Amino acid sequence: MGDYRHILVKQADDTVRITMNRPERRNSLSEEHLAELLAAFRAAGDTNATGIVLAGEGPVFSAGHDFADVAARDLLGVRRLLELCTELMRTVESVPQVVIARVHGLATAAGCQLVASCDLAVAAESAGFALPGGRGGWFCHTPAVPVARAIGRKRLMEMALTGDPVDARTAEQWGLVNRVVPDGELDRAVDELLARATRGSRASKALGKRTLYAQLDRPEADAYTLAVEVMAAASQLPAAREGMAAFLEKRHPVWPE
Amino acid sequence: MGDYRHILVKQADDTVRITMNRPERRNSLSEEHLAELLAAFRAAGDTNATGIVLAGEGPVFSAGHDFADVAARDLLGVRRLLELCTELMRTVESVPQVVIARVHGLATAAGCQLVASCDLAVAAESAGFALPGGRGGWFCHTPAVPVARAIGRKRLMEMALTGDPVDARTAEQWGLVNRVVPDGELDRAVDELLARATRGSRASKALGKRTLYAQLDRPEADAYTLAVEVMAAASQLPAAREGMAAFLEKRHPVWPE
Amino acid sequence: MGDYRHILVKQADDTVRITMNRPERRNSLSEEHLAELLAAFRAAGDTNATGIVLAGEGPVFSAGHDFADVAARDLLGVRRLLELCTELMRTVESVPQVVIARVHGLATAAGCQLVASCDLAVAAESAGFALPGGRGGWFCHTPAVPVARAIGRKRLMEMALTGDPVDARTAEQWGLVNRVVPDGELDRAVDELLARATRGSRASKALGKRTLYAQLDRPEADAYTLAVEVMAAASQLPAAREGMAAFLEKRHPVWPE
Repeated sequence: MGDYRHILVKQADDTVRITMNRPERRNSLSEEHLAELLAAFRAAGDTNATGIVLAGEGPVFSAGHDFADVAARDLLGVRRLLELCTELMRTVESVPQVVIARVHGLATAAGCQLVASCDLAVAAESAGFALPGGRGGWFCHTPAVPVARAIGRKRLMEMALTGDPVDARTAEQWGLVNRVVPDGELDRAVDELLARATRGSRASKALGKRTLYAQLDRPEADAYTLAVEVMAAASQLPAAREGMAAFLEKRHPVWPE
Repeated sequence: MGDYRHILVKQADDTVRITMNRPERRNSLSEEHLAELLAAFRAAGDTNATGIVLAGEGPVFSAGHDFADVAARDLLGVRRLLELCTELMRTVESVPQVVIARVHGLATAAGCQLVASCDLAVAAESAGFALPGGRGGWFCHTPAVPVARAIGRKRLMEMALTGDPVDARTAEQWGLVNRVVPDGELDRAVDELLARATRGSRASKALGKRTLYAQLDRPEADAYTLAVEVMAAASQLPAAREGMAAFLEKRHPVWPE
Repeated sequence: MGDYRHILVKQADDTVRITMNRPERRNSLSEEHLAELLAAFRAAGDTNATGIVLAGEGPVFSAGHDFADVAARDLLGVRRLLELCTELMRTVESVPQVVIARVHGLATAAGCQLVASCDLAVAAESAGFALPGGRGGWFCHTPAVPVARAIGRKRLMEMALTGDPVDARTAEQWGLVNRVVPDGELDRAVDELLARATRGSRASKALGKRTLYAQLDRPEADAYTLAVEVMAAASQLPAAREGMAAFLEKRHPVWPE
């Protein structure tokens, strides 16, 4: 699928697997790499797949931005890079598929941001997570956006200000990842969680994911206003009618798509 | 209290106990059942009780919407049902009493939403919580609204997208319930927590609960603007004056109401 | 530093230590005490220190407002006191230094609010945290503002409505503090965490802290808009250029300030 230099994309059954493949650069996110990831997520979003796995080849998941691609840029150049990066993160949230991160090694800076931006995440026991800009000169301002929305405020401050990595068990306890498993069971655990998260009607799940992100940031009353309209409309779709009919008739549903 | 078909309502001492009583329908929330719950919460809100316990009769707490009452409805009919359901959830948050959920068995879909909407919740060890719309055809859009505000984002995605139940201990760790106790100690634990949560001045606590919900959704600066005004005004009420006087005079307070 | 009656302020190396010193009044926050804390934080904010430690002398961290200073006030007088208190809390968040609370004994009401308002917090094992207004007549409306933003909603309701203390381990699990350590190791743990949180460029960290608080309350799209602009601009600052150059040249960075 596609013609990429920095990533591998495979579709099998209902799952698209997007693998960052710049191991010699620790899967750092150069402009070209970001552009390919964005293109791949957009293309996957247009398929009939129900799930997307984001993984990394080599020793780490992703080291974040590629300083070799940042250091020489002026303000406009860095802004363009960060806008592209943000577009990728928002696309991960907006594609209709369930997106799951398969995290091994380190996920740092924009790499940690990717994990926070995926709907679900499973980490190997040996994985680590960091916002290392806090240690140095270029603070992790944008990576902190989705990380702040996944973990508590004090934990965010600790990660962002110290820049030090937290281990996988701590990340699970803080809500940055859903599962931590022994390294050898990572692929199986990713597939198992993704299978459970992609059951049922594709159309229903896609509308569900979109509405979750839309309501999350709103005051509760606004969130209800939106959710009531969507849920009322969704009740008239074939998938909802079939789900209810099957339940009432005590049979397995046959999803319309 | 009241003349209800689907629920039981009792007031003893300062506590109103509202019990869903459609065990043969797993306490599912038909329009009539929702309307009775709403009426009962409104009536309880007008009493001088300080606490409300919400419980369910039979094998489960509540299975959520009653598909037999949804399947035949058109868009307007479902919207009316969901608006009624939302009105119930918002009323649970807006009555002046402390509302505590007593959860046993399963709390699913709008049943799980009820637990998330109560101020406090105590669960039996054997209880489970699910947003099962994620498994099937009618996504749990509205139940996800208060659940999203009780647990972390990654956990919300897992519950909403997989539809699978989480056990009581996990629900406690994620912040969906306050306590998990052995099944045989459920009533005692509910009463113990409610007693501690309803001490003191009724007027002060009611204003406190209202202000908590009002400030939760606002940016911090707005939340402070509101909370400062309320707290300054509250300092002039008889309850605050008595509380401070008793503290300074090293005696037990005698609450004005 | 400064001429204070109720607090002690010392600067050594890069750290300003502000210690509440009204042990006979349990470090309660009278108007004078609040005014001195505010002045000390503002003065510390103008120094070239990188960190601020907030601690309390005597048996507790802080008991919150001083009822002896509240009981006789009218509405305008209490509002003035609460506005001063809020100004202190917001200043703790807005000074460019990393602020860490060193918590021992009890941190109650506005004392608990102080802990929630500090960027980081380390607690002794024997410490406790409470919003005791829930027990009595003057509800902890303003303390609940930052506490709500540090812990989950159900936990907030429990603390605010019961007024009962939670122990240090629970506070850590809920995200109100970053670390709990044996009482004898408190100072060492505070210094260790602060050292890690204050490494690197002072200018970069100050901009980072400011942007974290600015983005936390916004919808995600707005948060990204802000963070992208700040991070793009920050990439052009000497600290970011030096950090990237040092990384690419595999040497230790020399921060420009």
